[in-house]
Amino acid sequence: DGGSYDVINDASSPAAGDCCAQQSSARHNWEMNYQEAAIYLQEGENNDKFFTHPKNAKALAAYLFAHNHLFYLMELSTALLLLLLSLCEAPAVPMLRLGIFVHATLELFALVVVVFELCMKMRWLGFQTFIRHKRTMVKTCVLFVQFIEAIVVLVRQTSHVRITRALRCIFLVDCRYCGAVRRNLRQIFQSLPPFIDILLLLLFFMVIFAILGFYLFSPNHSDPYFNTLESSLVNLFVLLTTSNFPDVMMPSYARNPWSCVFFIVYLSIELYFIMNLLLAVVFDTFNDIEKRKFKSLLLHKRTAIQHAYRLLITKQRPSGISFKHFEGLLRFYKPRMCARERYLTFKALNQSNTPLVSLKDFYNFYEVVGLKWKAKRNREHWFDDLPRTAFLIFKGINILVKSRVFQYTMYTVVAVNGIWILVETFMLQGGNFFSRNVPWSYIVFLTIYGVELLLKTTGLGPVEYLSSGWNLFDFSVTLFAFLGLMALAFNMEPFYFIVVLRPLQLLRLFKLKKRYRNVLDTMFELFPRMASLGLTLLIFYYCFAIVGMEFFAGVVYPNCCNTSTVADSYRWVNHTVGNKTVVEEGYYYLNNFDNILNSFVTLFELTVVNDWYIIMEGVTSQTTHWSRLYFMIFYIVTMVVMTIIVAFILDAFVFRMNYTRKNQDSEEDNGIVLEKEISKEEVVGIIELYKRISGASETAQLQKIVLQMDKYGQMSTVFLGRRSRTKSDLSMKMYEEEIQEWYEEHSRKEETQTTLQEPASASNSSLKPLSLRQRSQTVI
Amino acid sequence: DGGSYDVINDASSPAAGDCCAQQSSARHNWEMNYQEAAIYLQEGENNDKFFTHPKNAKALAAYLFAHNHLFYLMELSTALLLLLLSLCEAPAVPMLRLGIFVHATLELFALVVVVFELCMKMRWLGFQTFIRHKRTMVKTCVLFVQFIEAIVVLVRQTSHVRITRALRCIFLVDCRYCGAVRRNLRQIFQSLPPFIDILLLLLFFMVIFAILGFYLFSPNHSDPYFNTLESSLVNLFVLLTTSNFPDVMMPSYARNPWSCVFFIVYLSIELYFIMNLLLAVVFDTFNDIEKRKFKSLLLHKRTAIQHAYRLLITKQRPSGISFKHFEGLLRFYKPRMCARERYLTFKALNQSNTPLVSLKDFYNFYEVVGLKWKAKRNREHWFDDLPRTAFLIFKGINILVKSRVFQYTMYTVVAVNGIWILVETFMLQGGNFFSRNVPWSYIVFLTIYGVELLLKTTGLGPVEYLSSGWNLFDFSVTLFAFLGLMALAFNMEPFYFIVVLRPLQLLRLFKLKKRYRNVLDTMFELFPRMASLGLTLLIFYYCFAIVGMEFFAGVVYPNCCNTSTVADSYRWVNHTVGNKTVVEEGYYYLNNFDNILNSFVTLFELTVVNDWYIIMEGVTSQTTHWSRLYFMIFYIVTMVVMTIIVAFILDAFVFRMNYTRKNQDSEEDNGIVLEKEISKEEVVGIIELYKRISGASETAQLQKIVLQMDKYGQMSTVFLGRRSRTKSDLSMKMYEEEIQEWYEEHSRKEETQTTLQEPASASNSSLKPLSLRQRSQTVI
Repeated sequence: DGGSYDVINDASSPAAGDCCAQQSSARHNWEMNYQEAAIYLQEGENNDKFFTHPKNAKALAAYLFAHNHLFYLMELSTALLLLLLSLCEAPAVPMLRLGIFVHATLELFALVVVVFELCMKMRWLGFQTFIRHKRTMVKTCVLFVQFIEAIVVLVRQTSHVRITRALRCIFLVDCRYCGAVRRNLRQIFQSLPPFIDILLLLLFFMVIFAILGFYLFSPNHSDPYFNTLESSLVNLFVLLTTSNFPDVMMPSYARNPWSCVFFIVYLSIELYFIMNLLLAVVFDTFNDIEKRKFKSLLLHKRTAIQHAYRLLITKQRPSGISFKHFEGLLRFYKPRMCARERYLTFKALNQSNTPLVSLKDFYNFYEVVGLKWKAKRNREHWFDDLPRTAFLIFKGINILVKSRVFQYTMYTVVAVNGIWILVETFMLQGGNFFSRNVPWSYIVFLTIYGVELLLKTTGLGPVEYLSSGWNLFDFSVTLFAFLGLMALAFNMEPFYFIVVLRPLQLLRLFKLKKRYRNVLDTMFELFPRMASLGLTLLIFYYCFAIVGMEFFAGVVYPNCCNTSTVADSYRWVNHTVGNKTVVEEGYYYLNNFDNILNSFVTLFELTVVNDWYIIMEGVTSQTTHWSRLYFMIFYIVTMVVMTIIVAFILDAFVFRMNYTRKNQDSEEDNGIVLEKEISKEEVVGIIELYKRISGASETAQLQKIVLQMDKYGQMSTVFLGRRSRTKSDLSMKMYEEEIQEWYEEHSRKEETQTTLQEPASASNSSLKPLSLRQRSQTVI
Repeated sequence: DGGSYDVINDASSPAAGDCCAQQSSARHNWEMNYQEAAIYLQEGENNDKFFTHPKNAKALAAYLFAHNHLFYLMELSTALLLLLLSLCEAPAVPMLRLGIFVHATLELFALVVVVFELCMKMRWLGFQTFIRHKRTMVKTCVLFVQFIEAIVVLVRQTSHVRITRALRCIFLVDCRYCGAVRRNLRQIFQSLPPFIDILLLLLFFMVIFAILGFYLFSPNHSDPYFNTLESSLVNLFVLLTTSNFPDVMMPSYARNPWSCVFFIVYLSIELYFIMNLLLAVVFDTFNDIEKRKFKSLLLHKRTAIQHAYRLLITKQRPSGISFKHFEGLLRFYKPRMCARERYLTFKALNQSNTPLVSLKDFYNFYEVVGLKWKAKRNREHWFDDLPRTAFLIFKGINILVKSRVFQYTMYTVVAVNGIWILVETFMLQGGNFFSRNVPWSYIVFLTIYGVELLLKTTGLGPVEYLSSGWNLFDFSVTLFAFLGLMALAFNMEPFYFIVVLRPLQLLRLFKLKKRYRNVLDTMFELFPRMASLGLTLLIFYYCFAIVGMEFFAGVVYPNCCNTSTVADSYRWVNHTVGNKTVVEEGYYYLNNFDNILNSFVTLFELTVVNDWYIIMEGVTSQTTHWSRLYFMIFYIVTMVVMTIIVAFILDAFVFRMNYTRKNQDSEEDNGIVLEKEISKEEVVGIIELYKRISGASETAQLQKIVLQMDKYGQMSTVFLGRRSRTKSDLSMKMYEEEIQEWYEEHSRKEETQTTLQEPASASNSSLKPLSLRQRSQTVI
C-alpha cells in the first residue's frame, strides 16, 4: 500500500540523505525520515549537539541501541556499582566488607561494561567525533587508569593508595539521567572566575590581618592563637567561618579590652562585607548564565524543529506536515502515545484549520507534546446521574465540604490537635512513651480526620479529591495516623515510629495563607533542580570522602589527640567518683574517615562549618600540617557549591515573586491547559486512516469515543490537554520581549550561514512562535 | 529701589499668601517669596512632608530657628549626651563612674534642652499638627517618662531598674542628621510582615522536630540535649544557628549512627532551605521598597519644585523665572554660593536661551544645584608655561608616569614588598620585633615609593595628582610609612603601631583589576548607606545593652556556672603541676553585661552567633530560664537586621553590575560633568545687576573673571560643573522608562486634585525632564 504515500523527493528532504541514501523503497524511506526527525527532536530536547547526529545506517543502529532506557539504566547501574564498591573496599563499612578478590572482580566487570558502552558510543559517533568529544575522552582516560589499577590490585592481592577512585564519579556524571548534574557542574565552573577574584580579595585581607595579628598579639605568651605566623593565618582562616570566634579573641581581650577592635574590624570586613560580596557576584553571574542558558536551549530546540520539519514535508505540499507524516513521527518520538492523543496533539499544533501544520505552528511542538489529554466531562459532579434523593444528599455534602466554615473548622481542629500534642508531650517528661492503652485523644482526632476524609471523598468524588496535592497530603497523613493507631493497638513495636510522625499533621495548617502556598508550590517546582544540586554536592562529597579515607582512615580514636589544643573533644575517660562510674566523653573521635559512611557524616559536619576546626586540628595533630589543606580546600569548595545553592534558591524565589507580581490577575493557575474540540466525522476519518496504515489494533480507543458520542447524541467531544507549568514556561513569560529579538537575530544568523531550501513562509521566524501561551486558560 | 521689581500679583503666587498676607511692601514680599520657595525646595530635598510647612510669620520664625546647623548640632549633642550617660550610670565603666547626683543632674539638663527643642517645634508646627505628628508624640511621651524617672532618681539618691533608658535612642533617631537611620528603621519595619511569615514557618518546623527529637532521643539517658521538651526546643533553636552542631548530635550518634539522619534533615530544611527563603523574601521586599521609595522621593521633589516655581513667577512673565528671582531664591537656599556659581547654575538650568527658566527646565534644579563649578583650564599640563628645557623634562616625566611600563614596575615593586614582608614576618618567630636599627629593606622600598611620589607629583602637577582617589591613597600610605620610619629611627615607642600598618601598602595592588576597582568604587558609593545601617544596628545594640545591664549585670564571674553544662568555659583554676603554676582559664566570664562597653562586645559576639549558647547558658544558670528569651529575641532581631544588610549589599552590587552591563560604553566615567560657556558681556551684565541690588560686595570674583578674559584676550570662558554620581543618578538611568510613566500618572492625579493656575506649558510633565543626563559628558 506504499502507493498511498506521497512520492519522496530528495530535494524536499535533504537531511534524510545522510543516513538512508542507499534505501530505495519510498515506504522505507519515509520510515527513515520519521525516525531521523524524531532523533532531531530528541536531540533538541536533550540539548545534544547536532554534530553527534548519526551520519549513516550503521551509526543509526548504534545510536538507537545507545538511546533507550535499557541502555541508560545499564549505564546508571554500572556507575552506581562502581561508586558503591567503596562501601566494600578497605576501609570498608564493617557489615559490608568483601574480600579483595571479590570486589576487584566486581570492579573489573563493571569497567568492562563501561568499555562496551564506550565502544557503542564510538560506533555511533565515528572515531573523528569521538576523539573531539571532550567529556568522552576524559571518561576514556579515567577508564584506562581504573582498569590498570584494578588489575594491579587483583595481581598484588592488596589495595594501594587509590585516590584515583575519587574519579569514579565521572562515570555517574556522564550518565544520560544525570544531565542536570552536568549542567550544574558547568554552571559552577562558569561562575568560578568572578568567584575566585573575590576569594583572592578575601584571602588577601586575611594575610594582611594575619601579619597584623602576629605583630600585635604574639608578645602575649598566654595567647596560643597568634604565636607564629602560621597559626595566625590558620586561626584567621577559621575565624572567617566564625567557628572559633569568641575563643580566639579571649586571651588578648583578657589582657587589653581594646584588642576586640581588631576582631570586630576583621569580621566586619571579611564576614559581613566580602562574604556578601561573594554572594552578590555569584548571584549576578548565576542570573546571567541562567538567562544565556535558557536562550541557547530555546534556539537549539528551534533549530531541531527546523531540521525535523524539513524531513517531514514533501515537494508536492511544501507548506506543512500532513497528519499522516506527523503520526509517523510520533510513532518514533513517543511510541507509547495512543492514536487519540496523536490526533489531538496534531489538532493542538494546527492553528490554521488547514490539513497541514506549518513550520510556524510546528515551533510549538515541545510545548504541546507534553500535554495529557482527557475528555472534558459534561457532568459537574460525579453524582449527577444518581437518583434525586441521593443527588440531594451528595450535593449537600459537596456544598458543605466546599464551604469556608468547614475548612476553618478543620483548621481549628488541627490547631487544637497541635496544641494537644505539645501539651501532652510536655506532660510526659521521660516516662513511658508508648503506653499499652491507646490515648483517647488520639482516637478522637483520628475519628474527626476520618470523617473529614469520608465527607470530602463523597462530596467531591474520589477522582477530584485526589487530583489536589493538598488533599493527597491530608489523605496520606490520616492514613499514617491510622497505621500508627493500629501499631499501638496491636502493640507492634517496630512501627512505633509512625506514632512519632503525628506532629506532621500540623503541616496542614499551611494551606491557610497564600504566601505559604506560594512557597510550597515554588518548592515543588524547584524540587527536581534542588535534587540535582544535592546530587552535585554528593559527588563532591564522594571525591573528598575517597581522598579523606585514603589519607586519614583510622587516625582519630578516643584519647588520640592529648597533645593538641583540642584534646578535650577527643577525650574518653572512665573514672570513679564516690561509688559511681562517670564516663567523660568527648565524642569527636566519631567524626572520622574510617569508612565512606562515616566520611560522609564528617563531611556534612564540615559543611555546616560550626566547630569544624576541632575535626581539622584532631586530624592534623595525628598527621602533618599539610592535612589542613584538605580541610581548607573542602571548605572553599563547599562554600562555592553552597553559595550557588543559595543563589539558586534566591533566584528561583525572586523570579517567582516577580512573576506573580507581573501576573496578578492569573495568580491561581496551576498548570497549562488547552481545549480542543473534535467532531465525530474527524474521528471516523482517523479510524479509516489507521485501518489503512496499521490494521485495527490502534483504533479501539477511537471507536470507544464514537460509541460514547452516539450514546449521548453528541456531534463532538471536547478534550482538555493539561500539564504542569515548568520553569521554562515562566521564563518564556518573563523574557517575552527579548525572545523575539533572539529569534530574529538567530534567523538572521542562519540565513547568512546556510540557505534553507524551504518555502520563505516557513523560515519567517519573526512571527509570534509561542501562541500556546495565549491560548492557555486559567483553571483553579 | 523697590521699583525695579515686578509688581507681585497674588494670583501668580498664591502659596505666598499663607505666611505673608499681612506684608505690604513689594520688596519685602519678594524676599518672603524667595524664602518660602527655598523652604519648599529644602522640604523636597529632605523628604519633609508639606503639611509641616510653616503657615504664618511666627511659625516661619520658629521654622528658621529650628532649621539650621546650630540647632541640629544642639539636638545631636543632647541626644549623644543622654546616650553617653549610660557610660557613667551604675553599672558604669570603672574609669568613668560619676556620682548619682552628678549624672542625674546632667540628665535633667539634657532633658530640659529637649523640652526646649520640642517647644520650638510646637511653635513652628502649631498645636494641631504637633499632635498629629506621630514621631514627635512618641518622643514627647518618652521625654515625660524620662523626666519623671530622673527626678525620682534625684530624690531617692539611688538608681532603680530603669529599662526605659533603652528608649533614649529615640532622641538620637529623631535628630535631623539621623534621617538615614529613620529611613532604615522604616524599611526594616516594612520588610517585617513577609519576614515574620517565613519566621513562623521556621519556628513551626522547629517545634515539630523538637517533639520528634524528644520522642526519639529522650530514652537515651546519656543525651542531655533532648531529655525534656524544653531543652529539646532550646537545643533545636541553637542548632538553627549551627552553634552547637556536632555536639548536639554526638550522644545519639554514638548510640545509633542512623540518628544523624534526623539532624541532616533538620539542618537541610531549616538552615539551607528556609533560612535562604527568608533572605529571598527580604531581598525581594527590599528591592520593591527601594523602588517605591525612590519613586515617592522623586515625585515629592517634583511637587516641591512646582510649589517653589509658583512663588517665583510673576503675572507679567508667567512662562518662567528671571535670573533676578532665581538669584533671590539661591540667596536663601544656598547662602554660601558666590555670584558666579549662581549665574552658572541659572545658565545650566536654562536650556532655551531665553532669559527665563521654564518649569520644565526648573525640574532639573536638584541635579544642577549640587555641581561645583570651575573654569576650564586652557593649559593641558601645569608646566606648559615654563621655559622650553624645563617643559621637555617635565613632559618626559609626564609621559613616563603615564606609561604602562612604569605602572607595572610599581605593581611589581609592591608585590615584591608584600612577599618580603611576609617572609620577614615568617622569619622572626616571637623575637624582638622592633630592633633598634632600621631594616635596610624598609629604607629601600620607602625610597622607591618616595621617588614614585615625586615623579608623579612633578609629572602630573600636584592638583591633578591629588584629584585621583588612588593617588591620594598611595600618598597617605607612603606618608604613613615615612612616619613609621621616623618612629623607628628616633625610637619613639608609642608610634610603633604605624610600622605594624605596613602591610596595608599591598592594597595598592587592587588597582590592577577592573573588577576590584568596580568593587571599591561601589564600596565608596555605598559607604554612607552602610554607615547608617551600622548606626541602626548600634541603636538596637544600645537598647539590648541597657536591658541586659539592668538584668544581668554582675551575674557571671569566674567559676560562676559550675553546675551548668557550660561550666568549663567559665572555669578559672590556678593549680600547681610539678613546680609550675598552671592557670586553666575559660575566658567566658569576660563576656558579661557589667558595663555598657562590655555589653556591646558581648552583643557583638552574640551577633557573630558562634558559641553564643555558652553565653546564654552561663547567664541562664545564674538567673532564670526566662533569660533565654532575651538571647533568643536578640538573635531574631539581629537576624532581621543582618538579613537586611545582606539584602542591601546584594541589591547594591547586583544593581551596579546590571548598570555596568547596560552602559558598557560609558563605564569609566566617575561623576557628572556639565560644560557652560559664558561671554564677557554676560559677566558685565551680571556685575551691573549685582551693583544695583546689593552693592559691590559680591562682584569681586566676577570682576576677576573679566580681568582674566582681558588678559588672555578671550571673548568667553568655559566653566565645568562637576559632582560625583549618586545612587539616585544610577536609579534614574535604570528606571528611565518607568519614570516617564510615574510622572504622567502623578500629573494626572494632581490635575484632578488641584487645578494649577499656571500656563499649560509648565504643567506639561510628559516632556523629558531629566535632559541633564543627556548633556552629561564622559570624563576619564
